[in-house]
Amino acid sequence: MNARPSPYSFLPIATVESPFKEKFGTPRQPGLVPSVEGAIVLRSDLNPDAFDGLETFSHAWVIFVFHQSEMASVKTKVHPPRLGGKPIGVFATRSPHRPNSIGLSLVKIRAIEGRRLIVTGLDLVDGTPVLDIKPYLPSIEAKPEAVDGWTSAAVGSDLVLEWSEPATRNLAEAAAGDAAAAETLRQTLEDIIRLDPRPISYRGTKDAPDPYTATYGFRHGDWNVVYRMEPNGTAVFLRLEPFVARR
Amino acid sequence: MNARPSPYSFLPIATVESPFKEKFGTPRQPGLVPSVEGAIVLRSDLNPDAFDGLETFSHAWVIFVFHQSEMASVKTKVHPPRLGGKPIGVFATRSPHRPNSIGLSLVKIRAIEGRRLIVTGLDLVDGTPVLDIKPYLPSIEAKPEAVDGWTSAAVGSDLVLEWSEPATRNLAEAAAGDAAAAETLRQTLEDIIRLDPRPISYRGTKDAPDPYTATYGFRHGDWNVVYRMEPNGTAVFLRLEPFVARR
Repeated sequence: MNARPSPYSFLPIATVESPFKEKFGTPRQPGLVPSVEGAIVLRSDLNPDAFDGLETFSHAWVIFVFHQSEMASVKTKVHPPRLGGKPIGVFATRSPHRPNSIGLSLVKIRAIEGRRLIVTGLDLVDGTPVLDIKPYLPSIEAKPEAVDGWTSAAVGSDLVLEWSEPATRNLAEAAAGDAAAAETLRQTLEDIIRLDPRPISYRGTKDAPDPYTATYGFRHGDWNVVYRMEPNGTAVFLRLEPFVARR
Repeated sequence: MNARPSPYSFLPIATVESPFKEKFGTPRQPGLVPSVEGAIVLRSDLNPDAFDGLETFSHAWVIFVFHQSEMASVKTKVHPPRLGGKPIGVFATRSPHRPNSIGLSLVKIRAIEGRRLIVTGLDLVDGTPVLDIKPYLPSIEAKPEAVDGWTSAAVGSDLVLEWSEPATRNLAEAAAGDAAAAETLRQTLEDIIRLDPRPISYRGTKDAPDPYTATYGFRHGDWNVVYRMEPNGTAVFLRLEPFVARR
């Protein structure tokens, strides 16, 4: 093909509303934190009847822009966290750093409310621009027999999770005293940490685990979640603070 | 969200080489004609090491532009063939006529040869611009339990297929006397016709089947394939002619 074909221009059709406010603490794939809920909000000049019939499907594809990766990458090799620094061709990965900053995410449909498509299990950062939504077709797209390449290594970690007393109190406050909501939030936060959001260089190896023993914080919904990594592989939730935007 | 967010611009990273030369006769979903083979050819200024590691996966996603649908559609309802004219929200369909002309197709990886990714089961027209390629992750994307909405109706038809004597002779010629190649081509062409590529308005109903009893032709590879629909639901391959471009 020509070295320089014509570019194609697309206007986002929707924007994501998500409790994930930053890349750190956002799952790297969908479905890993099933309890988390978000919305895909249709552009105000599009008729919401565009969603009619989508409620008959259980899952949908979201084609989106990795807007926090800012610029398209010209690199053809990337270093995904799970390969521990080993380079691999970008088209053999789901890395956000790719020639076109386009992402593909499978979400579960919970409800449609006017121009809001409510979904669960999402891995999308708040404010993500959405280019398209398509129904998931299991008869064509469910291939349990498909061969998973290098990504088949376990996604989760074997971190042990603990809650400090202040963090447990904060959890009840965050759920406004609703015990079921507190339990859901606890599960969500534990799922997030179990996926180990730390960059690979902070994780250490089996022989030299976590060289940093550091305290980390990330924003989830309206809360700043603070936890500490212990050298023995335990993650301790220290506290949840109301998030206050820095000006 | 704002009525008018900023547009995003993407340069195709590859182009499709396919025996499907026009929309008529191209399957509407991937995998329906598994014997068909094509290539996704990487842009000449991108390093083919971008494919390194993709050979460890069996399937890949192709995110592409519906370039034959020309303009993005502002319509939010479409009339898919399988619903027989009933309107449905565009985001509940895989229709090419959508606000952003972006398609998503799952293909089987056969080989990587330099900058050529050889795939089978494709549903892509020759010349399709490709925006991205991603590995298929069965652990996350194979959901056999997912609920298929209105599309769960059978994809195939119950057409009976027959070959005329001239068409059988042409088949052997098209395969240059190679019996196995002729058998593969026969299977491919039968799969295509069994999917009934005719527009819905040409198909008739159960009570009034095929009002047209017409002869159809489509280009497949270097051949123009001519067949006739009989009123009793039989499709007869009449002949294969070498394709000659009209000038």
